[in-house]
Amino acid sequence: MVMRILLEPIVRAALFEDLGRAGDITSDAVVPADAMIEAVIVARQEGIVAGLDPALLAFELLDPGLAIDILAADGSTVARGQRVARIAGRARPVLAAERTALNLVSRLSGVATATRSLVDAIRGHNAKIVCTRKTTPGLRILEKEAVRLGGGANHRFGLDDAMLIKDNHIALAGGVAEALRRARAHAGHLVKIELEVDTLDQLAEALAVGVDAVLLDNMDPPTLRRAVQMVAGRAVTEASGRITRETAPAIAAAGVDLISSGWITHSAPILDLGLDIA
Amino acid sequence: MVMRILLEPIVRAALFEDLGRAGDITSDAVVPADAMIEAVIVARQEGIVAGLDPALLAFELLDPGLAIDILAADGSTVARGQRVARIAGRARPVLAAERTALNLVSRLSGVATATRSLVDAIRGHNAKIVCTRKTTPGLRILEKEAVRLGGGANHRFGLDDAMLIKDNHIALAGGVAEALRRARAHAGHLVKIELEVDTLDQLAEALAVGVDAVLLDNMDPPTLRRAVQMVAGRAVTEASGRITRETAPAIAAAGVDLISSGWITHSAPILDLGLDIA
Amino acid sequence: MVMRILLEPIVRAALFEDLGRAGDITSDAVVPADAMIEAVIVARQEGIVAGLDPALLAFELLDPGLAIDILAADGSTVARGQRVARIAGRARPVLAAERTALNLVSRLSGVATATRSLVDAIRGHNAKIVCTRKTTPGLRILEKEAVRLGGGANHRFGLDDAMLIKDNHIALAGGVAEALRRARAHAGHLVKIELEVDTLDQLAEALAVGVDAVLLDNMDPPTLRRAVQMVAGRAVTEASGRITRETAPAIAAAGVDLISSGWITHSAPILDLGLDIA
Amino acid sequence: MVMRILLEPIVRAALFEDLGRAGDITSDAVVPADAMIEAVIVARQEGIVAGLDPALLAFELLDPGLAIDILAADGSTVARGQRVARIAGRARPVLAAERTALNLVSRLSGVATATRSLVDAIRGHNAKIVCTRKTTPGLRILEKEAVRLGGGANHRFGLDDAMLIKDNHIALAGGVAEALRRARAHAGHLVKIELEVDTLDQLAEALAVGVDAVLLDNMDPPTLRRAVQMVAGRAVTEASGRITRETAPAIAAAGVDLISSGWITHSAPILDLGLDIA
Amino acid sequence: MVMRILLEPIVRAALFEDLGRAGDITSDAVVPADAMIEAVIVARQEGIVAGLDPALLAFELLDPGLAIDILAADGSTVARGQRVARIAGRARPVLAAERTALNLVSRLSGVATATRSLVDAIRGHNAKIVCTRKTTPGLRILEKEAVRLGGGANHRFGLDDAMLIKDNHIALAGGVAEALRRARAHAGHLVKIELEVDTLDQLAEALAVGVDAVLLDNMDPPTLRRAVQMVAGRAVTEASGRITRETAPAIAAAGVDLISSGWITHSAPILDLGLDIA
Amino acid sequence: MVMRILLEPIVRAALFEDLGRAGDITSDAVVPADAMIEAVIVARQEGIVAGLDPALLAFELLDPGLAIDILAADGSTVARGQRVARIAGRARPVLAAERTALNLVSRLSGVATATRSLVDAIRGHNAKIVCTRKTTPGLRILEKEAVRLGGGANHRFGLDDAMLIKDNHIALAGGVAEALRRARAHAGHLVKIELEVDTLDQLAEALAVGVDAVLLDNMDPPTLRRAVQMVAGRAVTEASGRITRETAPAIAAAGVDLISSGWITHSAPILDLGLDIA
Repeated sequence: MVMRILLEPIVRAALFEDLGRAGDITSDAVVPADAMIEAVIVARQEGIVAGLDPALLAFELLDPGLAIDILAADGSTVARGQRVARIAGRARPVLAAERTALNLVSRLSGVATATRSLVDAIRGHNAKIVCTRKTTPGLRILEKEAVRLGGGANHRFGLDDAMLIKDNHIALAGGVAEALRRARAHAGHLVKIELEVDTLDQLAEALAVGVDAVLLDNMDPPTLRRAVQMVAGRAVTEASGRITRETAPAIAAAGVDLISSGWITHSAPILDLGLDIA
Repeated sequence: MVMRILLEPIVRAALFEDLGRAGDITSDAVVPADAMIEAVIVARQEGIVAGLDPALLAFELLDPGLAIDILAADGSTVARGQRVARIAGRARPVLAAERTALNLVSRLSGVATATRSLVDAIRGHNAKIVCTRKTTPGLRILEKEAVRLGGGANHRFGLDDAMLIKDNHIALAGGVAEALRRARAHAGHLVKIELEVDTLDQLAEALAVGVDAVLLDNMDPPTLRRAVQMVAGRAVTEASGRITRETAPAIAAAGVDLISSGWITHSAPILDLGLDIA
Repeated sequence: MVMRILLEPIVRAALFEDLGRAGDITSDAVVPADAMIEAVIVARQEGIVAGLDPALLAFELLDPGLAIDILAADGSTVARGQRVARIAGRARPVLAAERTALNLVSRLSGVATATRSLVDAIRGHNAKIVCTRKTTPGLRILEKEAVRLGGGANHRFGLDDAMLIKDNHIALAGGVAEALRRARAHAGHLVKIELEVDTLDQLAEALAVGVDAVLLDNMDPPTLRRAVQMVAGRAVTEASGRITRETAPAIAAAGVDLISSGWITHSAPILDLGLDIA
Repeated sequence: MVMRILLEPIVRAALFEDLGRAGDITSDAVVPADAMIEAVIVARQEGIVAGLDPALLAFELLDPGLAIDILAADGSTVARGQRVARIAGRARPVLAAERTALNLVSRLSGVATATRSLVDAIRGHNAKIVCTRKTTPGLRILEKEAVRLGGGANHRFGLDDAMLIKDNHIALAGGVAEALRRARAHAGHLVKIELEVDTLDQLAEALAVGVDAVLLDNMDPPTLRRAVQMVAGRAVTEASGRITRETAPAIAAAGVDLISSGWITHSAPILDLGLDIA
Repeated sequence: MVMRILLEPIVRAALFEDLGRAGDITSDAVVPADAMIEAVIVARQEGIVAGLDPALLAFELLDPGLAIDILAADGSTVARGQRVARIAGRARPVLAAERTALNLVSRLSGVATATRSLVDAIRGHNAKIVCTRKTTPGLRILEKEAVRLGGGANHRFGLDDAMLIKDNHIALAGGVAEALRRARAHAGHLVKIELEVDTLDQLAEALAVGVDAVLLDNMDPPTLRRAVQMVAGRAVTEASGRITRETAPAIAAAGVDLISSGWITHSAPILDLGLDIA
Repeated sequence: MVMRILLEPIVRAALFEDLGRAGDITSDAVVPADAMIEAVIVARQEGIVAGLDPALLAFELLDPGLAIDILAADGSTVARGQRVARIAGRARPVLAAERTALNLVSRLSGVATATRSLVDAIRGHNAKIVCTRKTTPGLRILEKEAVRLGGGANHRFGLDDAMLIKDNHIALAGGVAEALRRARAHAGHLVKIELEVDTLDQLAEALAVGVDAVLLDNMDPPTLRRAVQMVAGRAVTEASGRITRETAPAIAAAGVDLISSGWITHSAPILDLGLDIA
């Protein structure tokens, strides 16, 4: 669960973006100031709920007096038509926060649902689905949480919390071994090092120096299987590259520990959720 | 083109999110401080470019000394493999900005490309594709620009720049006519009023009072056609509701002025763009 | 009523500006920490109250434990000596917020009172008094609200919520007709277009192309009357240029819909309000 | 001169307020991207210029490529029709910054001009005109500078840089002497103490304890004269209370050191300045 | 006591710095969400408590539901092992705020304790210990408060609330007398002027012009004594330069009013405080 | 080297804190606007330079026109009297930035110098000196860099980039093994886990489950030696608890990999650096 102190700046900024200078001029004109409302957030399709906390915070920030009940908590699987939350109180703030709240919860539920679809695709294998840094600018911590709610695990959160040596780093360092040596020399004792390899030769070179994890990029399942055998438990193995529900099972069957997918954060369609007035 | 003063806070925040506290610890460890690089942003699939300005600003904010050339400007159609921009200079800032830049340009190009696909689907008709407020929190002005670059037009930017009276407003006001009267009484002389109608009876009621635009929600093409005839040029007509490439042509053929799509902003897959080292 | 979430950053910044680093060093030295006070905001001259919400928020932000009562709500006409609000509780925060609160409410009440004076001057005519973008930097949304509380209406809130084509735009576009055509081609369907005209020839040209509103700048009443006749209801008519209580009635009598005044926001004297200890 | 690092947040916020989300949609639609312009800020009435620095910074922030020349620096007396500054370059940023720039320079020049009118009214006397904390929220440092440019001097900048003991403090402390003693006990050695007195008895009590300055509130000239005699150079004397051009000379003649006016900041009409295209 | 509105931005920033993107991942993994805790802040050495307000605010900002009791208020002398505050409630927010809170209270208590050690060293003399502007960037108002809690007094808070003319100013102005004359000409009536002198000749020159305070820099006690005699009460006298517990008594005995120390803010060791679980 | 984009917000805030509202009123009064200066930052005692980048940025932010030369880069050992940097240009901005710059560089050089003193104390042993999270609120990234410049290594940067299971976590989890299991279940594949142990029994329990690093808290050298033997290379070993120059060598000789010190960041005295005018 993302702490409220971390959620608040994101939700506040989202509200400011929608309210602009003059606020909700339609509701201010059309809806009486004292009109009361009871609204429910309803799933319009089946999926996994995520982002309910920031969505409900949007209502609360506009009116702390609203009564808010969670009916299907973050991480729940909801059926089409199922009610996810109820908001009751003054109508104007409910309507003013509606779009901001739905934009948050539907996008994040989309991420969770997409994650779950990959998780389900490899069920029975040891591999875990992990996300990448291909997230929406400004929403990374929420999308990382949505991945976890969908059953996936998190890769690093940014450039600063682990080392991931990629092809360009290797080229600029003059090879896998030298890149790894430099990384090891600079890394703090609580910083792990992962290295992206494109070939089994690179993998052999990396294992000779030692590494915490290897990112096996765009390898086919037979190559992955050989890579896993070469690693032999000395490093975490991660497969990446155009992962889909169709390709994932064979990749998982190759024995890798992790399968990383950019798609679950950068291209997942939203989960359709709406606000109905009771 | 979005003014730089409006882009900068968004791009700066996106960089902070990725750099965290310690910055790009991998490049700092592995890449020499004086290593130089020439990098190109390359399209890995065909589509429309959008968001190049904020993407390139990410590089510039980390190192104003980088040489940056645009090879395929925002709005261009690019082929798979086509080079979009070139960045040359110190390697560390290029690598540190890479993911932030790609996250911006690939997401926004995805929005432009999705928009274009709908625009192409209705080519030959008078209707325009317009976006909604179902945008990514924090990125609305960029996504609105991407929609324009894809050939679409913009709906309102927020709750404050036009009135859009929806079903809940109508219910709380006690009917279409009363809602419109209240809106008109409060609206400034430069504020337009649009009303969402679900039935032709509601449409008739709205036209009797007068309205700038009507949102015809979830009507089938024959009903839309009758609605357009009823309106007879007295208001702008907008059709909405689960618009796809397949359904759009018939809706456009019904004669509406606008077809609005949430999908182009909330669920468009990214356009795959990568950074290659020359 | 401006939403609290929009008020808060303005009031918080105003308090920071006055408190500086060390806060209210006089009260901290002279007034015991546990001293209690009952204070009233009192009108020292007759006028219209506006800005009470942000003013009272200043007290609340310094001490949520203060008891605050509104005695004459925003929009009220108050007589000299009339009590507008009562604040009771710890003395130090009341004294620390006093000047910030009074600066807000007296300035905004000044705007409302000035607006009302023009509204009263044209009572009996159809014209409405509207404001401009000649507002105090940082306080626009508050001053727009004050104009409404004084009986006026709002012009656009910024450069982005409507198009207003002025003399410089016309010159750079190469004429009224071309400017209007370009505007229409770019404007979203919920964006209105107003055009400033200096002559009746320009007005004729504008009407030929079509426009939502015309700003008749610095025309004398007879010319305004002819302009209104030419428009014949096809556009909203707005008169501007050195509007005073003396000149306004004749301008209103010319039949324009709107009379815009920069003076009500940029040069209105404050309404004198003070804080008395009960 | 206010340092640029202090000006920039104010001007940036003022631009954001006017640009909103979409920026200057009129100029973007009507003015070609490559159109060039030469504009001059012109005084439309006689007065003292102030606020040119922040006004010109508005242009520079939107386009650092603009050529900007100051023709009549801050503090200059300008005649009607006199050119104050010239801005040349791309037309769109010039038009987008125009209103923000003029709002700043016209308001601040109004403050300087009002100050000068009082300064002129008491010319020949020793008294100086000083401002108060009755400034526009958010603009205090600019208005204080404008007062100086108009020939006035500055009172304290906030609650924290000097002590000013007012009637409410005295009441809560239990008398003039006790209030002064507490103030002295808490004040740092670089903090001055001023005390507001309503009667000559209070003045005598204050002088007995010792004080850096006395604020003689709402006294008539004869009383002021007696107060000045009583003080006999032991404290700075400041007169306040509804100061006008008419009342100021007699007050100055009474021999006070300072005459403070809230009107010069809270109610000064703007100086009319416009932007003309050459 | 520093107002909460001034504390909050500092504490919030400190929490963000420690929480990073993902928050307290250890507690989230290891401690059940519903685990309750009772924690006490305990002094691990004798000293003066300061900074308890911001420290406790760190807990409150993470969870307003925590029960917080102050056992030894700011300014108290605490013995080794003494309990300073108690925090009870959900375990996760307590553990997440722990380090931020302790960093604040231990540093500020260190400042107060260091101040007290100097205050004690000169007990019996008239001199007061004062701080300087050699404070920790970002924490000045808290450190100034800690100095007061330790029994010291505050020098100016920044460059803007008093004038302090130093050697470089004198050199650039062309001498002590000219520097003082310029200062006096520009200073508002509530701005005091202090001048740093290195020699008794400079002191004589300053006294001839008149000055509020003199900073006697790096003078030995006999010279200080002569300086105090020369001043003869016409200015506040401040001694500075490598003040220690050993040198302070002789300096105080020389009769100066103030002894300023940078050490108490820039190099005071922390007071060791820890968080124990009851 | 900390990226400029990360430095700038810290330095800007530090300048605002010192400049307050009115800026450097002494220099503005006393120093002519066109006076030029050449200043050098000089070490007044021997030590290691750190923080020169943010210090020099303070000058640059106030005047980009200043000529700035680094004479002894970050990480250099400087002798007493050695010149560290030279700043030439307009006198006013140099004087206005002086204290902010010196506060930064002297504090951070103090951290680097303290670190070096511990590094030197254990020279010849394998152990490295590492810092903790006991840093100055707001300055963590700068202090972490200073530790590296002094020859130390960095522990985690915050609560979110690695897991450190401490005594309270263990108590709340119900034991070492259960805490470690929970941590492992939640940790991403690039997140390392360290566990604090107070006894060798706890150490044995941790090693049985497996852990990346162990924090051996407050153990004497013989116990540490046995702990290192028990670990036998299966985890990184870190000793902590009241480390001084005197105690460090024996601890290092016990064979631990890391010795962590809070003192180097929370209580290091500054390195005395001054600004001299050439």
